[in-house]
Amino acid sequence: MIKIKIPATSANLGPGFDCLGISYTLCNVYKVKKAKSMLIEGCNKKYTTKSNVFNRAFQKTMKMLGKKGSFHVYYEETIPASRGLGSSASVIVAGCMAANRLYGGLRKLNKDEIFNIAANVEGHPDNVAPAIYGGLTVTAKLTDKSYHCSKYRVSHKLHFTILIPDFKTSTEKSRKVLPNKYKKEDVISTISHSILMVDALQTGNMKLLKNISKDYVHEPYRKKLIRDYDYIKKTIEKNYDAVVLISGSGPSLLVISKDRHLHKKIKLTNTKANWEIKPLKIKQ
Amino acid sequence: MIKIKIPATSANLGPGFDCLGISYTLCNVYKVKKAKSMLIEGCNKKYTTKSNVFNRAFQKTMKMLGKKGSFHVYYEETIPASRGLGSSASVIVAGCMAANRLYGGLRKLNKDEIFNIAANVEGHPDNVAPAIYGGLTVTAKLTDKSYHCSKYRVSHKLHFTILIPDFKTSTEKSRKVLPNKYKKEDVISTISHSILMVDALQTGNMKLLKNISKDYVHEPYRKKLIRDYDYIKKTIEKNYDAVVLISGSGPSLLVISKDRHLHKKIKLTNTKANWEIKPLKIKQ
Repeated sequence: MIKIKIPATSANLGPGFDCLGISYTLCNVYKVKKAKSMLIEGCNKKYTTKSNVFNRAFQKTMKMLGKKGSFHVYYEETIPASRGLGSSASVIVAGCMAANRLYGGLRKLNKDEIFNIAANVEGHPDNVAPAIYGGLTVTAKLTDKSYHCSKYRVSHKLHFTILIPDFKTSTEKSRKVLPNKYKKEDVISTISHSILMVDALQTGNMKLLKNISKDYVHEPYRKKLIRDYDYIKKTIEKNYDAVVLISGSGPSLLVISKDRHLHKKIKLTNTKANWEIKPLKIKQ
Repeated sequence: MIKIKIPATSANLGPGFDCLGISYTLCNVYKVKKAKSMLIEGCNKKYTTKSNVFNRAFQKTMKMLGKKGSFHVYYEETIPASRGLGSSASVIVAGCMAANRLYGGLRKLNKDEIFNIAANVEGHPDNVAPAIYGGLTVTAKLTDKSYHCSKYRVSHKLHFTILIPDFKTSTEKSRKVLPNKYKKEDVISTISHSILMVDALQTGNMKLLKNISKDYVHEPYRKKLIRDYDYIKKTIEKNYDAVVLISGSGPSLLVISKDRHLHKKIKLTNTKANWEIKPLKIKQ
């Protein structure tokens, strides 16, 4: 039996829509062993069928390895599901890693190969990349259809707090609310903001971060799907030296600040939903 | 008399519209001295009036310094004008630096202050930034209306060749050809391409550069204003391990490659205009 730990992640990060991601030390643990037939335990029953993403990722990896075989897996989940924290990416990456470690022998796939399989199973690379490489990742689909990932370290000056509500949002719905076209001015701002977001996260430049974390591509549309968004964003950004971003497609909100104790200070007195407030550490 | 050297620059760089810029060792030299009234020599007569940008930049800087005074300047120009190589940004930065060095005394303005004055005179920061800081620059207008610049080094593995045609394009016209709206897919590609352009230029990763240098924001529209664009881009990118980008708003074309002798190899047999082919070195 082997133990595989795959972290929670936040994709998008304001102006880095479908591209940026960061990795946390918060993770799911997957206990896996070789077996003749598939068995998935420790999670919601609807995720235990053959069509579930762990098995799909496992089988795609087995195909790449040129091997046949199956597995038993037991999930120990701490990443909340459907909250914009990459729980599905974690399961997919675990499925790939499980096949690679159990059946890869002396010819194991490398991280880049695992990343390409996982991104294909997930359909987009922005959560699986930080789940595999750690730190801050920038991803793109290349002209040959393969995926690229550049990895950077996140400044230790920055501290991350996640606000997790007691409701879910559907990724599908959150894709549908986006417009088909964007204004030129917004596109131009997005170019500099996205590049400088990577800069600010690496250098820990809070002044820059506050100036360029404004997004024009997804947050103005998706915020409508997140109860309490306007109240929380205003309250936190007004009272603290911090920025509030949507984690992935939401509904969780990510607060970035230089104050390591911010999670203890945030008081949300006027929300409709219940919000869990939790400090997160970056897995570099 | 003091000598001020301000370099040629290329803005935009594919997916970095209105944001990225690089600096070359090719530069204009401005010989300046204190004087009671303005005199500009060594350039086209139409640029010698009070409304010219050297004088405007000079006077704005004098105002910031709280000083009064004028100058004589003699231009030794090697940056070709109206070719997308930042000749106007060079003149503006020179005007600021001249005032600062001649009249700043012990309370000279720093680079960031000069940058903000120059960006205001030019109307946009993407050429004046590399002219002042050197290397590769990323600029943005912040919420308080000031300009930010982050600077990076360009990989020494990359070599730059400029193709300068015997015709000019107007910056105004090249702004007008841009659409007012962009498709969501193009915006999403632009986000990752612009971030990874900065990565590829820093690391010298030619494979990545070729994959992400495609622009969706300005090049597809501005190329129509540049005779021979399609022929040159195809010929060079097909025959050499290189990418071809529009320098600024054109008409010059920038070729980036790992081959330091590329400028000697490029053969353009089928062009309508005459193109000068010139190697350029990065001023870091």
